[in-house]
Amino acid sequence: MDKKQLVDCHERIKPYIHNTPVLTSRLLNEMAGAQLYFKCENFQRMGAFKMRGAANAIIQLTDEQKQNGVVTHSSGNFAQALSLSAQSLGVKAYIVMPSSAPRVKKEAVKGYGGILIECEPTLEAREHESDKIVKEHGATFIHPSNDDQVILGQGTACKELLENQPNLDYVFTPVGGGGLIAGTALAAHYFGENCKTIGGEPFEVDDAYRSLQSGEIETNTTTNTIADGLKTQLGDRNFPIIQKHVEEIVRVTEEEIVTAMQLIWERLKIVCEPSSAVALAAAFKSKEKLSDKNAGIIISGGNVDLSSLPF
Amino acid sequence: MDKKQLVDCHERIKPYIHNTPVLTSRLLNEMAGAQLYFKCENFQRMGAFKMRGAANAIIQLTDEQKQNGVVTHSSGNFAQALSLSAQSLGVKAYIVMPSSAPRVKKEAVKGYGGILIECEPTLEAREHESDKIVKEHGATFIHPSNDDQVILGQGTACKELLENQPNLDYVFTPVGGGGLIAGTALAAHYFGENCKTIGGEPFEVDDAYRSLQSGEIETNTTTNTIADGLKTQLGDRNFPIIQKHVEEIVRVTEEEIVTAMQLIWERLKIVCEPSSAVALAAAFKSKEKLSDKNAGIIISGGNVDLSSLPF
Repeated sequence: MDKKQLVDCHERIKPYIHNTPVLTSRLLNEMAGAQLYFKCENFQRMGAFKMRGAANAIIQLTDEQKQNGVVTHSSGNFAQALSLSAQSLGVKAYIVMPSSAPRVKKEAVKGYGGILIECEPTLEAREHESDKIVKEHGATFIHPSNDDQVILGQGTACKELLENQPNLDYVFTPVGGGGLIAGTALAAHYFGENCKTIGGEPFEVDDAYRSLQSGEIETNTTTNTIADGLKTQLGDRNFPIIQKHVEEIVRVTEEEIVTAMQLIWERLKIVCEPSSAVALAAAFKSKEKLSDKNAGIIISGGNVDLSSLPF
Repeated sequence: MDKKQLVDCHERIKPYIHNTPVLTSRLLNEMAGAQLYFKCENFQRMGAFKMRGAANAIIQLTDEQKQNGVVTHSSGNFAQALSLSAQSLGVKAYIVMPSSAPRVKKEAVKGYGGILIECEPTLEAREHESDKIVKEHGATFIHPSNDDQVILGQGTACKELLENQPNLDYVFTPVGGGGLIAGTALAAHYFGENCKTIGGEPFEVDDAYRSLQSGEIETNTTTNTIADGLKTQLGDRNFPIIQKHVEEIVRVTEEEIVTAMQLIWERLKIVCEPSSAVALAAAFKSKEKLSDKNAGIIISGGNVDLSSLPF
């Protein structure tokens, strides 16, 4: 994917997304020994960066495809992002979700106009159900992270951040399915001046770290992390980009995630997901590298259940 | 206090404060049946609007007064605001605080360079201690809310909000000691186009509501509210302004405060104090008045203890 594709993508989705604010904190700078710039995608429409990729993927469909709708299986932010993007673009969105998903997430999808289809909580059931919708309605399946148009869309957050702060030496993102970090790494490569991309990943779901070591896409056998957005695995579209353009994946403990999350809430006065805190935790762990440098941190989203906070 | 004084005050304090962002939420608009504009003073330096009044009060001192320092007694945001303002202006700040105040508040004052003086947790002890500092050091006592320069400073938040949204019909603030609502009412009067000021106050500490009824400054016999910033009472400098320029004080229940607070956190993705939520709760209670109008809400601050949230 080249620079022009990212520029075009950004122009295309601008009417459907917010150019989110960039926040700073003197205390967090002192703690990191660096200048940190927080790109606040928790303020994005529907509360997460996923809006960018979802909007781009739908806009890029042919008119006929748009008429038949889109489908995805997700119990997370991408379900809401695809629903809201589709609604904004006058397209039907079928969302396959395990029946065990929290009621609040189901309501959110319906609130954004998504058509909710519940299934058994297994990957097989999810895939079976979405295949059925593709066949029955001619809907186009859109993957939450392993899709070129989604990757390009997610990269626009870093593009905006670099327009705001052109002199970044590093940009940190959390690593889940790989869409955000792949898009970010492309944007840092094309629009930064020697800006390197670093991923943060919980030790408990370190598939991306291990994948970079082995050269093959690895999976997680356990998913025992508070960062519930990061339990997914890389795919064949984003992994080669990550191999080529990501400098390093830094693993962090659950305790480091909670500490970083609390600092973001207390000091930046914003509500963010545990997954977002993984990026700051990784920056704190990279202190030597960061000394007196400028680093961007992508705050990926802010959809949290206030009744089950870790502090 | 006239328009020019507010303009001059704003120019004076600009180097020491942030022009904080204004946020909106489609869902909160739907719930209120109005367009709501949230002025986010939780993003202000030290985390609350109090920075504005404190900075203005210190700048207005003579050089000799500045040399002798300032003193206040407060266990809340004004203690931090006076400490940070004084530090920014090269002035000593003596902060009298009850020994029973939370450790985190004492640390915050010291972190901003304030000189902490602990005393017994009674009003008499606080006043005695600050009188002593006035006598011994020649320091100038600055009241957190009943001071013309403080009132002017607090009014600049509403002035900025009206610069951002000139067509506000209403502006809502919480009511505690009366500095914020008095300054806001002045700013709404001078810079708004028929913009009316409404105060939100917990039923549990409804001294301002009762004061407007009786025409005299009333006090609270109980202070059983989650909105810990609003337990203070009005003073002779701000009460006449409130009588003249505030349209109404709307009282809200503790449950309404918590509901509004949760909505702000979940929908705006920001961390705010319970006191700030009182203003939104009052707006929700004014639905008839607000129908299809534009209303500003001052989010007064974001210094909360994450370990004791009401949800």
